[in-house]
Amino acid sequence: KQEFSKFPTKAGRRSLSRSISQSSTDSYSSAASYTDSSDDETSPRDKAQVNSHGSTNFCVKNIKQAEFGRREIEIAEQDMSALISLRKRAQGEKPLAGAKIVGCTHITAQTAVLIETLVALGAQCRWTACNIYSTQNEVAAALAETGVPVFAWKGESEDDFWWCIDRCVNSDGWQANMILDDGGDLTHWVYKKYPSVFKKVRGIVEESVTGVHRLYQLSKAGKLCVPAMNVNDSVTKQKFDNLYCCRESILDGLKRTTDIMFGGKQVVVCGYGEVGKGCCTALKALGAIVCITEIDPICALQACMDGFRVVKLSEVIRQMDVVITCTGNKNVVSREHLDRMKNGCIVCNMGHSNTEIDVASLRSPELTWERVRSQVDHIIWPDGKRVIVLAEGRLLNLSCSTVPTFVLSITATTQALALIELYNAPEGRYKQDVYLLPKKMDEYVASLHLPNFDAHLTELSDEQAKYMGLNKNGPFKPNYYRLGSVYDFP
Amino acid sequence: KQEFSKFPTKAGRRSLSRSISQSSTDSYSSAASYTDSSDDETSPRDKAQVNSHGSTNFCVKNIKQAEFGRREIEIAEQDMSALISLRKRAQGEKPLAGAKIVGCTHITAQTAVLIETLVALGAQCRWTACNIYSTQNEVAAALAETGVPVFAWKGESEDDFWWCIDRCVNSDGWQANMILDDGGDLTHWVYKKYPSVFKKVRGIVEESVTGVHRLYQLSKAGKLCVPAMNVNDSVTKQKFDNLYCCRESILDGLKRTTDIMFGGKQVVVCGYGEVGKGCCTALKALGAIVCITEIDPICALQACMDGFRVVKLSEVIRQMDVVITCTGNKNVVSREHLDRMKNGCIVCNMGHSNTEIDVASLRSPELTWERVRSQVDHIIWPDGKRVIVLAEGRLLNLSCSTVPTFVLSITATTQALALIELYNAPEGRYKQDVYLLPKKMDEYVASLHLPNFDAHLTELSDEQAKYMGLNKNGPFKPNYYRLGSVYDFP
Amino acid sequence: KQEFSKFPTKAGRRSLSRSISQSSTDSYSSAASYTDSSDDETSPRDKAQVNSHGSTNFCVKNIKQAEFGRREIEIAEQDMSALISLRKRAQGEKPLAGAKIVGCTHITAQTAVLIETLVALGAQCRWTACNIYSTQNEVAAALAETGVPVFAWKGESEDDFWWCIDRCVNSDGWQANMILDDGGDLTHWVYKKYPSVFKKVRGIVEESVTGVHRLYQLSKAGKLCVPAMNVNDSVTKQKFDNLYCCRESILDGLKRTTDIMFGGKQVVVCGYGEVGKGCCTALKALGAIVCITEIDPICALQACMDGFRVVKLSEVIRQMDVVITCTGNKNVVSREHLDRMKNGCIVCNMGHSNTEIDVASLRSPELTWERVRSQVDHIIWPDGKRVIVLAEGRLLNLSCSTVPTFVLSITATTQALALIELYNAPEGRYKQDVYLLPKKMDEYVASLHLPNFDAHLTELSDEQAKYMGLNKNGPFKPNYYRLGSVYDFP
Amino acid sequence: KQEFSKFPTKAGRRSLSRSISQSSTDSYSSAASYTDSSDDETSPRDKAQVNSHGSTNFCVKNIKQAEFGRREIEIAEQDMSALISLRKRAQGEKPLAGAKIVGCTHITAQTAVLIETLVALGAQCRWTACNIYSTQNEVAAALAETGVPVFAWKGESEDDFWWCIDRCVNSDGWQANMILDDGGDLTHWVYKKYPSVFKKVRGIVEESVTGVHRLYQLSKAGKLCVPAMNVNDSVTKQKFDNLYCCRESILDGLKRTTDIMFGGKQVVVCGYGEVGKGCCTALKALGAIVCITEIDPICALQACMDGFRVVKLSEVIRQMDVVITCTGNKNVVSREHLDRMKNGCIVCNMGHSNTEIDVASLRSPELTWERVRSQVDHIIWPDGKRVIVLAEGRLLNLSCSTVPTFVLSITATTQALALIELYNAPEGRYKQDVYLLPKKMDEYVASLHLPNFDAHLTELSDEQAKYMGLNKNGPFKPNYYRLGSVYDFP
Repeated sequence: KQEFSKFPTKAGRRSLSRSISQSSTDSYSSAASYTDSSDDETSPRDKAQVNSHGSTNFCVKNIKQAEFGRREIEIAEQDMSALISLRKRAQGEKPLAGAKIVGCTHITAQTAVLIETLVALGAQCRWTACNIYSTQNEVAAALAETGVPVFAWKGESEDDFWWCIDRCVNSDGWQANMILDDGGDLTHWVYKKYPSVFKKVRGIVEESVTGVHRLYQLSKAGKLCVPAMNVNDSVTKQKFDNLYCCRESILDGLKRTTDIMFGGKQVVVCGYGEVGKGCCTALKALGAIVCITEIDPICALQACMDGFRVVKLSEVIRQMDVVITCTGNKNVVSREHLDRMKNGCIVCNMGHSNTEIDVASLRSPELTWERVRSQVDHIIWPDGKRVIVLAEGRLLNLSCSTVPTFVLSITATTQALALIELYNAPEGRYKQDVYLLPKKMDEYVASLHLPNFDAHLTELSDEQAKYMGLNKNGPFKPNYYRLGSVYDFP
Repeated sequence: KQEFSKFPTKAGRRSLSRSISQSSTDSYSSAASYTDSSDDETSPRDKAQVNSHGSTNFCVKNIKQAEFGRREIEIAEQDMSALISLRKRAQGEKPLAGAKIVGCTHITAQTAVLIETLVALGAQCRWTACNIYSTQNEVAAALAETGVPVFAWKGESEDDFWWCIDRCVNSDGWQANMILDDGGDLTHWVYKKYPSVFKKVRGIVEESVTGVHRLYQLSKAGKLCVPAMNVNDSVTKQKFDNLYCCRESILDGLKRTTDIMFGGKQVVVCGYGEVGKGCCTALKALGAIVCITEIDPICALQACMDGFRVVKLSEVIRQMDVVITCTGNKNVVSREHLDRMKNGCIVCNMGHSNTEIDVASLRSPELTWERVRSQVDHIIWPDGKRVIVLAEGRLLNLSCSTVPTFVLSITATTQALALIELYNAPEGRYKQDVYLLPKKMDEYVASLHLPNFDAHLTELSDEQAKYMGLNKNGPFKPNYYRLGSVYDFP
Repeated sequence: KQEFSKFPTKAGRRSLSRSISQSSTDSYSSAASYTDSSDDETSPRDKAQVNSHGSTNFCVKNIKQAEFGRREIEIAEQDMSALISLRKRAQGEKPLAGAKIVGCTHITAQTAVLIETLVALGAQCRWTACNIYSTQNEVAAALAETGVPVFAWKGESEDDFWWCIDRCVNSDGWQANMILDDGGDLTHWVYKKYPSVFKKVRGIVEESVTGVHRLYQLSKAGKLCVPAMNVNDSVTKQKFDNLYCCRESILDGLKRTTDIMFGGKQVVVCGYGEVGKGCCTALKALGAIVCITEIDPICALQACMDGFRVVKLSEVIRQMDVVITCTGNKNVVSREHLDRMKNGCIVCNMGHSNTEIDVASLRSPELTWERVRSQVDHIIWPDGKRVIVLAEGRLLNLSCSTVPTFVLSITATTQALALIELYNAPEGRYKQDVYLLPKKMDEYVASLHLPNFDAHLTELSDEQAKYMGLNKNGPFKPNYYRLGSVYDFP
Repeated sequence: KQEFSKFPTKAGRRSLSRSISQSSTDSYSSAASYTDSSDDETSPRDKAQVNSHGSTNFCVKNIKQAEFGRREIEIAEQDMSALISLRKRAQGEKPLAGAKIVGCTHITAQTAVLIETLVALGAQCRWTACNIYSTQNEVAAALAETGVPVFAWKGESEDDFWWCIDRCVNSDGWQANMILDDGGDLTHWVYKKYPSVFKKVRGIVEESVTGVHRLYQLSKAGKLCVPAMNVNDSVTKQKFDNLYCCRESILDGLKRTTDIMFGGKQVVVCGYGEVGKGCCTALKALGAIVCITEIDPICALQACMDGFRVVKLSEVIRQMDVVITCTGNKNVVSREHLDRMKNGCIVCNMGHSNTEIDVASLRSPELTWERVRSQVDHIIWPDGKRVIVLAEGRLLNLSCSTVPTFVLSITATTQALALIELYNAPEGRYKQDVYLLPKKMDEYVASLHLPNFDAHLTELSDEQAKYMGLNKNGPFKPNYYRLGSVYDFP
């Protein structure tokens, strides 16, 4: 997901003090929710469940759904061959032998493949959910069935949320020495309730913008007491989370919600960063006529060269069929813009949180809201004009489309390698600070995914490596190298 | 030009000790050489010429060509409106008043627009050529006619080259306080012959990879005695010199030399950096079937996602119609590859210097070379097979196509702003080191070019600027930001 | 839908003798089925329903759903402005005054907009469904509520199907003088049961390939007793039904069923006609690596020039991630091909009926079928290999994605104009034969849709019209002109 | 070349009565004119030349250039493998044994490959040029050297032109029985001077729009006395001459003349037929922002769906950087438009003849013309505004770029097959009328060119052929089928 905040906001800065992170309650469209659990209203906390091995060390919706979840996991494994090959390569050595990992992430089939890879590499794991809506109950059941203590279900209350985290951390006779977090809530809880745990923890791996931001703040304040790895900003993950994933999901999100025909549609994309580039590429390719708004002249110049007119939103708003925000800013689409849109205009957000479109301004008495489908509202003006708002201005691709397993595989593999790196790093390599994944491991994540494309890498000859001043096995670019740029000189 | 060496080579390292830089003798295709000077074989050094104002303070091929050159300059001005608007904006203040600039660059209509802009901003200039082939004689004449002391002509000998530089630097009653260099030969000469000049020099602006490399070496060795600005690595210039310029020139270079039809051609591009990306984009768009070779798994993964098969050269070489190198490495196309190419295969280099294709290996007795056009050789194998080598493996787009004025405008504007910045910087802002252009000036260069596209920039509201933690006038990205990447976090 | 059969097959030829057309029982994904009618198992035929005006002259699932259906119709109207403008232009004259139209089509919100346009133009209409699954019950209710006699519901039995058609045709005191058919079942029924109706009928408008084929056969056999208009083959409709609609729906169909990531996927598209071109364009644009199979050297050459490798299926089948058929032929993907596919390969059909993939060959004991989602089956080989078959080999875009309203608007407008033309044609213009829509009306359909794109047509000056030998109002191309070709000479 | 006139104009109708066709004096950019013949001002008609076999039966510029021309022919052969394979396939039978072909075409290396193929197939040939500028003297010499009587040189006068044609037709002891013409001048001459020749002629093969138009007029007037084959309108040739060739040449023509950078340029293309489609595709792909003008709503709708805004020229003319005409009409760009263009706007014609831009209106006293390069004029308004007119409004791609050999190969192969067909057709198959190439031969031309792309055609199984009602060897489409369209039904 690309819910980045390029420049941490005031709101962002406050988030550490909130009792629960915003991301933990974001709406989330889960691809598969095949089983109907509506027949069972009992809280999992009140149920006594036992898996087929006799264990009760978990708390899920329904342990009987394990078989169904297992199939989901198997399907996910097909597109996560990087993790599978990691399992194979580490068959002998078990680089995570002795690791006790407590994890807090979305619990989906893809996460399950990650968890079971960590176990295959020698780790013990306890797991909980980072979002109260996103758990695939069947998958949680499948994990619990194989013996991973999982505490998570779809539709937790806030109280449930913290209860699950607590159960995960606070376990008799088992103390975590590694933390894998997504959003920072787990880390926050440990800081608040069990600070002594950090004495044994070798490191934290954090995946989200919000969580990473919290870590940097801790570090700045001198309170970070273990090394932390920021996997959110690894090159490979960034490119996939932003450019490629948005290129894939913008069309999908719009089609599933509105059945729009793209050909000939006038579209304005606000912001020409990676997310904007991904959206523009896909829409133009399908025959839409796309223009851009930008505040940064360099990005604007790039948009020109890529064949997009650069305009102010107010100049074109009357003609647009679709308005898409990708800025990371707030109130980019204001009520004034919304008032001037034409009948049938579609408005949605691919950028940051839910601030970009001033949806709040539409909650006024003269306008009528009509929910026409899940995630699709018609806002009706007194003169009958309808504006179509998707996902109430929240992230379109998280709410209305699915994230390809392959993208999740890159994230998961990066997390696994970060855990291995932190767990095995010699004393002193990492201090009480926030680190980026070393370039070489970033390249390793990429190389593990090349077989999916049957891609054949060229190897440097000795002579060429010498000429370039490179090690034949990489890293091939300096640590500060960012994809899509060429920094030519030290 | 994209003759970068990402990783300075041994050869590169030696270049400082050579008496003349390689780039100063590179072949160079100059767009316009309208006047025929073949009727005049006298060396300019032996001629007594005087311009219409009575000055003899110059040395060019033929001062009478001034009017013709003036028209060339006027045409160039049409596409360099950024410099023209810079002249206008600085009409009152003259930010270069008092500056005495000695310059050593290609002398073309576009450079003339730069020089005359510097003059309009208050500077005095003396100029010489950085390449013995690239001078447009008419333009040099036009500059000399208006009173700029120019010492340059097309087809200088090496001795002429240094004589011109010397005449430029060593002038009675005039001492430079700024240096604008392209390749480092001028800087080298001043270091060697007139080190005392540096006492008054406020800074060096250097445009080329080679020159920048020399400066970094001086800096490393503690011998750099004034601040230097590396304009080669400014974001805007990089993106245009590499991605966009190659996207434009690869088709042009191939068409002008071979009249090839692109549709359905099998092409392999070696290297998927910015240059490779530019080439691939253009070729794919025109119907070629393009595959890629890469050594770096991250770039390889990106190629996959962009829809290119990633292969080893040896796997596909037999089927290819065109082979293009963009790696910055050496012997990427070896004699073994050349032996296995099919009849009619075209081989060319868009990357680095002339090392990428092992052209030397083709100079062997069993092969026949046949020059079929300027820059086009057929190499004929004993069995009659012909391989078509362009520009003898040197840079295709420098040798066989032209660089758009707009790209040169970006470079020239960047140079002008770097001169203004160094000349006006308060004491202490810049030390005896090599600097990148400040992000904000990079953005300014971009913004000066937006009117060419009738692009309208969006301005942040106070509220939005506050939310983003940005100044409304920029910079909008951190200094370490590189186009095409999103670095999300401090 | 693009279920065309370029060359009528034996099977096709037999279809007239079947009691029900194949298309009437095809599976059909209806965009909106918001209301849950599962609470009501009574057959509509057994219900006594009355609309708010006291009429009982209809048979729908539940008249109380009318309000909901009305909203659906209103939403559809937003994208069908061509029909709305047709209503306005004909406000005075009522070109269908006196017309009594009996119709048999899919009953959806879009059809409702057509029917209500016909009524606004002066016609009386009675309507029934051409497919037993595709009726939107709420829309049928809304039509019935406004007084259109509709006989249709979702999930009819075959007996229901013919009963509805009969009720539509056989009405006391009302006799049709125009027929609008989709599939030929209505026409077939009138021929069989009420041949005397044809005495008053001024013409038949037929929309489907199958129906048109039946009409041509009747004509050939000398049994066609009224003029018929083949709207299936109008230029505008063809281009939208095939090229554009497939370009839009291939991505959507694949995403909704498999959440596949397109970037870097190896795809083979069998057939490079308009449907294949649409699929290839979209997939290539999203980063897939696409190759083609063709039997026709001219289409193959075109594929080459468009940048696609032309291969035999057997040569590439092992490497493919996705196989898409668009040939109109049978057994293009055979069991042998399926046996050689790699694990996880997706197979689907965009072409013709359900013959292109030999799905029947997969119904063998050694293979396991696993339904993982609606329309998605995993076929599992004994060694664990899974091949993913979509929609059991039926048309992917009809089964798994939606057709944009805009495409349906073009079809509906074409139908309306064909009805107007046939109804108002002077005696003798049309004989007992099958006609294509006159070029000029085809152009009129297109022009009615241009305002959706804010497109501004250029008008010929008198001088230019004379030079070109054209009427200023068109037609601009000869009748035999086909889009995308230039036929230069009589 | 795409100098088609979709609708024969008045001017066109008059052309038959002119003494020389317009196309015979069109400017023409010949790729290769390596040898400098400026040293020899003697008219070839006044020279006595003899080839190395002792023959004097030819008239060329300089027989000594034969060796140079031979190399040109050999290079052309590399891209004309279709003709080479035709030579091989017919090695035994000699399908043109006994044919005596008199030809009048451009005389280039590519034509030479055709002529030598005809000879290899058994024919005797005499040849002359259809254009007074386009002859490659070296190639003419090479043909004469091998014994083909050639009468042509570059820079003929009109008198020379007819003298050459006469020498070609009027030869003692040799009488043509086949005519291959390009423009109709040869045919016209035979009609006028040697009508009795037609008694033995089995057919005429005509390649140009103008020539074909003349033939249709003769046919209409009942004066066509032999069968004629219109190869101009064969499907394969049309697609290549228009869509693909323009896609390739628009960029090339613009670059070679103006060195324009395409990225971000605002371009309006007038006309969205095949030529316009080719131009738009290429320009959009290289980053230009393209809009369209159209008179035909169907083409306009197609432009919308392809992602181009459809505008009136007068609405956008002030903003455009480039204006390209592709309409086949006259005065599409008027003086009024030219007056409103911005400084530096480029205007050129890809469409028809030289009528589309009203260049004549620019020959007025208040405007200054400045020739800045070959084919490039600056027109300067009194206020200093410059508009850049290319090729004085004649066809850009004929004047300023080259036609790929592959495209010429398709034309030449089509001509060869048409000659074979007419020469060998059984009595009665062709009457005194104008015919299109049979579909099957069109497909054969295509198939002969597939090996260039290493394309592998799929063959129908017996079962599939039966199902489709097709012969396994084609034809695969009906005769009226036009590429890019799907005509589904008889």
